[in-house]
Amino acid sequence: MAQQQLPDSPPLTPAGSGDPGPPAAGTGGPPATTATGANALTGSAGATLARYLHDQATAFLRALSLRGEHETEADEQLRASARRIGGVLHIYAPLTDPAWAEPLRAELGWLATTLAREPQYANRLLRLLEALRRLSAAADPEAPDGTGAGGGAGAGGGAGAGQGADAPSGEEAPSAPAAPAAPGNGAPLALGAARAGALLDRQLTLARTRAHSATLQAMGSSRFHALADSIAVLASEVPLTAAAAGPAATVLPPLAAQADRRLAEAAGALPLLRAAHPYNAEAVQAALGTELTADLQDSPWHQVRVLLRLSRYAAEVCRGAGPDDEATARRLSGAAELLARHREAAESAAAVAAAARTPRIAPATAYALGVLHADQRHEVEAARFAFSRLWQPDDRPGDQEDDRGDRGDRGDGGPRRSPVPGARKE
Amino acid sequence: MAQQQLPDSPPLTPAGSGDPGPPAAGTGGPPATTATGANALTGSAGATLARYLHDQATAFLRALSLRGEHETEADEQLRASARRIGGVLHIYAPLTDPAWAEPLRAELGWLATTLAREPQYANRLLRLLEALRRLSAAADPEAPDGTGAGGGAGAGGGAGAGQGADAPSGEEAPSAPAAPAAPGNGAPLALGAARAGALLDRQLTLARTRAHSATLQAMGSSRFHALADSIAVLASEVPLTAAAAGPAATVLPPLAAQADRRLAEAAGALPLLRAAHPYNAEAVQAALGTELTADLQDSPWHQVRVLLRLSRYAAEVCRGAGPDDEATARRLSGAAELLARHREAAESAAAVAAAARTPRIAPATAYALGVLHADQRHEVEAARFAFSRLWQPDDRPGDQEDDRGDRGDRGDGGPRRSPVPGARKE
Repeated sequence: MAQQQLPDSPPLTPAGSGDPGPPAAGTGGPPATTATGANALTGSAGATLARYLHDQATAFLRALSLRGEHETEADEQLRASARRIGGVLHIYAPLTDPAWAEPLRAELGWLATTLAREPQYANRLLRLLEALRRLSAAADPEAPDGTGAGGGAGAGGGAGAGQGADAPSGEEAPSAPAAPAAPGNGAPLALGAARAGALLDRQLTLARTRAHSATLQAMGSSRFHALADSIAVLASEVPLTAAAAGPAATVLPPLAAQADRRLAEAAGALPLLRAAHPYNAEAVQAALGTELTADLQDSPWHQVRVLLRLSRYAAEVCRGAGPDDEATARRLSGAAELLARHREAAESAAAVAAAARTPRIAPATAYALGVLHADQRHEVEAARFAFSRLWQPDDRPGDQEDDRGDRGDRGDGGPRRSPVPGARKE
Repeated sequence: MAQQQLPDSPPLTPAGSGDPGPPAAGTGGPPATTATGANALTGSAGATLARYLHDQATAFLRALSLRGEHETEADEQLRASARRIGGVLHIYAPLTDPAWAEPLRAELGWLATTLAREPQYANRLLRLLEALRRLSAAADPEAPDGTGAGGGAGAGGGAGAGQGADAPSGEEAPSAPAAPAAPGNGAPLALGAARAGALLDRQLTLARTRAHSATLQAMGSSRFHALADSIAVLASEVPLTAAAAGPAATVLPPLAAQADRRLAEAAGALPLLRAAHPYNAEAVQAALGTELTADLQDSPWHQVRVLLRLSRYAAEVCRGAGPDDEATARRLSGAAELLARHREAAESAAAVAAAARTPRIAPATAYALGVLHADQRHEVEAARFAFSRLWQPDDRPGDQEDDRGDRGDRGDGGPRRSPVPGARKE
C-alpha cells in the first residue's frame, strides 16, 4: 500500500464537504492528499483506490472525533465520507473482496440514510416557510374585501386533537413565530398562509426531533461502533483482489467509464426535450392526483441523481486522467446541484400534500397548502428545465415535439411554426 | 368621400373576425375593400380613414342583421368592429370632429365591454376545468393511503345556503357533469378537485347567465339602437376636420407612429428582463396576499395589451405603407395573443381566489382551489416569458439582473456565473 502517514489537513474542510458541493480534491486547498503522485493514475489500481479510501476513512474518523463540538458539520462530513466510500466500493467492485465490501456498503448506506434525515427535515421546513413568505408577500396590508373572513376563521374551531399516528393536527396554534404573515391581517388567504406555516412548522419540527433522536441512538449503537471499526481498518488496509494489481491507468478508467455510461443512459431516457420547454407544466400535472403519479414521474430523475453521484465519486478516484477533467467535474457538480434541488422540491411538495391531509384544517389553511404544493411542483419543473439545458445545451427545443405535444409548446407564444414567433425578424 | 358602393363580401368573415385574429385586410380573400387604390395611402387622409370606418361599420351592420341565426359569431364581430371603430377614432382623433367622435367612442366602449362578458365567463370556465383535469390526471386510480378521507368529506356537511351576494356556496353538488375526477375515487385530493370543479362550474355558469341577460337587455335598449343608428351614419359619412384634407401618406403615418411609440414606451417599462428568465416566480409571488398585489403587478401588462390593440388598428388603416408591414402585423398579432392569454390566466386566478372565499367549503376543495390558483399564476408567468422573448428576441438574459435579482436567476442552474452553466462546453 502507498500510504505513509495520515495527512493532517485542517479539520473538516477537505475531501467532500457536503454532498452536492464541489468535489474533494482540485478545488480550494492544495491537493495534499494526492501528494504521493502528481497524477493519481501512476502506480497500481489497488494503490490508487486504497489511497482514496484511506483519505475518506481519515476524514470520517476525524469528523467522528470532532462530533462533540460541531455536531452538524461533523455529521455532514460523516455522511459525505460514508457515501463516497460506499459509492467507490460499488463502482470499483472488481478490485475489492466482495465478501468484505458488500456488508460494509450496506452499513455505510444505513449510516448515510440515518444521518441525512435530520438536515432534510430542517431544510424542508426552511424551504417551505421561505416559499410561504414569498407567496404571501403583500404589497399593501389592507384587504380589498372583507367577505368570507368568518368562513376561514370559523371552520377551524373545535378541532385540535391529534388524530393521525404521526401528524399532529389542530389549528389553534398560538401564532407560531415562524408564521409568515401577520395573523391580524384581515385577508383570509394571508391568514391561511400563516396557519399553513404554523402547521408545517409543527409537523416538520416534530419529524426533525424524531430524526435527531434516531441519529443519537444510531451513533451510540454497537452497530455504529462496528462500522467505525471497519472504517478504521480501511484507513490502513483495503482487502484487494488480484485485478487490483494492474496499472491504475488501464484498470480504473474503464470502470469509471462504465459508471458514466450508466449515467448517460439514464439521463438520456429522461424527457429532456420536453423539460427544455419552459412552462411545460408536466411536473404540476397530477398535482391533485395520487402521490403515486408524482412518484412515477419523479423517480427516473432521482435515479439519475444517484448515478450522477456515483459518476462524480468515480471521477474523484481517477482525478488527473485528462485535460477536460475540471470542466467535466464542474458540469457534473452543477447537474448534481440541480437534481438535489429537484428532489428537495419534490419531497417538499409531498410534505405539503401530507400536511393538507391533516384532519379538520380550516379551508383557508388548505387553500394556502394547495398554493404551496403547486409552487413546489413548479420548482421541480424549474429544476428539470435547468438540468435539461445543462445536460444537452445544443439540443434546444425546436419544431419537433417529443411527446404529448399538445402541451409541449406552451411557452412558445402564438404561431406554432417557430418556438419564438418573430424572434428572427425585427 | 371615396366610397361608391357597399362591398358584398361573404357574411361575417372579412374585416377583423374576432379580436386577436389576423388583421382585417391583406389576409384571406382578395383586398376588395382597398380596390379604390392599390396602396391605401394614396388620396387624402380623410378618405383613407373614412374607407376603414366604412368597412367596419358595414361589418357591424351585417353582423347585426345575422344575429338572430348566429348569435355568438355575430356578437364577436360586433365587438371586433366596435373596438376597431373606437380605437381608430382615438388614434386618428385630429382628423374627426371631437364633438361627434367622443360620445360615439364612449358608447362603443360600453357595447364592447357588455358583449365581452359572456364569452369571457364561458372561456374562463373551460380554461379552469381543463386545468383541473390536467392537475388531477391520475396515473393509477388506487390511492396510496386512505387516511384523512373523512376529514375532507365531513367538513362540507350541513353547509349549502348561499351567503355572499353573488357567490353561490354549498358543497353538496350532485357530482356535476363537468367534474374533472370521478368522485368515487378514494383520494381526498382528487375528490377536492371534483368539488372545486363543481363549485367553479356553478359560480361561473351563474355569472355567464347573468352576462347573457345583460347582453340581451343591452341589445334591446334604446341606447343600443341610438348607437346602431350612429354606426349606420358612419357607413356613409364621417364628420372630418380640416386636417383630414391633407394627403394620407403624410398625415396618417405620424399618428400611427405615435400609437407605436406609446406602445413601445409602455412595453419597455415592463420587467421584461426578469420575465425572460423562465421560472422567475414573480407572477406567483403574493399569490396568497391580497388581490391588490396581483392587480398592481398585472395592470402594466394589461395596459400594454390595450396599447398593442390600438397599434394594430392604427396599422390596419395605414396598411401598405411599407414592405415590412406583414412581418410587423404578425409580430403584433402574436404579442396580442400572448397578452390575451396573460389576462385570461390572471382573471382566472382571481376567479379561483374568489371561489376559495366561498363560506364553508371543505378543506379538500380549498386545497384544490389553491393548487389551481398557483397554476394559473404560473400561466401568467409563462405568458410573460413568451412575450418577453417575442418582444426583445435579442435581449436574452445574461449576467445582469434588472430588479430583485435574488430570485431572478432561478432557472439558470447551479453556478451563478453563466445563465446555463456548461452550455458552451461539452
